[in-house]
Amino acid sequence: MIDAKGVTAGVVLIGDEVLSGRTRDANLQAIAQFLAPLGVSVAECRTVSDEKDRIIAAVNTLRAENHYVFTTGGIGPTHDDITAESVGAAFGALTGVRADALEIIEEWYARTGTPLTESRKRMARIPDGASLIENPVTGAPGFQIGNVFVLAGVPKIARGMLEDIAHRIEGGAVTRSRSVRADNLREGDIAEPLGAMQEEHPAVSIGSYPYFQDVDGGGFKRGTHLVARAVDADELDRVIEKIASLVSGLGFETQIDPEI
Amino acid sequence: MIDAKGVTAGVVLIGDEVLSGRTRDANLQAIAQFLAPLGVSVAECRTVSDEKDRIIAAVNTLRAENHYVFTTGGIGPTHDDITAESVGAAFGALTGVRADALEIIEEWYARTGTPLTESRKRMARIPDGASLIENPVTGAPGFQIGNVFVLAGVPKIARGMLEDIAHRIEGGAVTRSRSVRADNLREGDIAEPLGAMQEEHPAVSIGSYPYFQDVDGGGFKRGTHLVARAVDADELDRVIEKIASLVSGLGFETQIDPEI
Repeated sequence: MIDAKGVTAGVVLIGDEVLSGRTRDANLQAIAQFLAPLGVSVAECRTVSDEKDRIIAAVNTLRAENHYVFTTGGIGPTHDDITAESVGAAFGALTGVRADALEIIEEWYARTGTPLTESRKRMARIPDGASLIENPVTGAPGFQIGNVFVLAGVPKIARGMLEDIAHRIEGGAVTRSRSVRADNLREGDIAEPLGAMQEEHPAVSIGSYPYFQDVDGGGFKRGTHLVARAVDADELDRVIEKIASLVSGLGFETQIDPEI
Repeated sequence: MIDAKGVTAGVVLIGDEVLSGRTRDANLQAIAQFLAPLGVSVAECRTVSDEKDRIIAAVNTLRAENHYVFTTGGIGPTHDDITAESVGAAFGALTGVRADALEIIEEWYARTGTPLTESRKRMARIPDGASLIENPVTGAPGFQIGNVFVLAGVPKIARGMLEDIAHRIEGGAVTRSRSVRADNLREGDIAEPLGAMQEEHPAVSIGSYPYFQDVDGGGFKRGTHLVARAVDADELDRVIEKIASLVSGLGFETQIDPEI
């Protein structure tokens, strides 16, 4: 693979519910799709359990290796929500209830007529030196400390918090992506010429991803998505046209997907 | 969180397409749900790009820390499929086209009338000393080397390969999981008594997971899933009944979900 990655991010998903298989994560995809147009690519993602040592280790490794880190999960009011103090500890910062965060939560709950219990005040625990991230869904803020952004685990809230982050990101060149869908094509039909094309165009990253879809009444449809990624839009267009011609030349129908 | 984890597994998802946000991973959930009834819990998952050094590092770290490791992705016929040699290198094993794997692929393609190209033969690259894992969907096998199981990335194929793995796993005590769904309950409504219950029942791991569902016509429904996990089924039943009573006592309707 081509390492034209430039500005990178690491992602740390915190939550026993993802590791146990109870829920299927949606946050990595949302974060990656948010970062791509800003010129930031996700280099690695680690999913860890709700244990302080594991959170600290993942955050410290990924923040040293990447320009940015995003965490999701573990910032609610319950006993298993330990992300704030864990990320604080990763930076050697103290974490306690902070007046600015508490004010936001107090106002939010006053407006919605919800009692402000002691456990809800836990959501105002923010490490010293961190700046707040607005939560337009349920009020209780996330935070940024250094190059680490701490978001909620509920996908709707995590996506809401991303709105308050774009202006804090200094991205690099934007990697564009285009793809060709070829029904019935199997990877092995095209692997050799595709490998040659990759060698000919080292500034473009070419990948192939087979798919299988179950069909009503039994059996399945199959095919392959051929994906090219590059910073140079003209070069990307040239390669994607060549891939489409290659597929047609092999006798398969092609469909060039809209740019994503 | 309680560390009654016993036998653990690490998962390494290999694929630029997951990190780029083009696709949303389904394999971690499938592997976790496959392992749970065998008495194995997933302790960590790392998603890495199609780069040899990153694959080797993730596999070597996780296989040292866990009883088992599962990888998905990167075992197809194209230039970006480098998992076999990377996992081989992690064990210091040579990886080449192996006769037993080639025979399986030859028979499969002969039966389906597909030409056996040079690139398809790449799918017979298996590290020395590895045992094969049957692929009932597309023929080309996965493999096991040491405590590492190497599966395809396409979810349908990965799930098919898991069928040939259960008999190779020595699990520990099975952690059972039950949950209570409480519509309209917010975490902050119950955080304090739930934390006290966690302290009272240290052998049970209690988690709370809020949910938000968009409703047609705008707005959203919200509520909380309260999940308990334990090895001791009787203790688990006692705790889940106490949680349900707690929720009812707060004036919310509860529904005890079927055991998963």
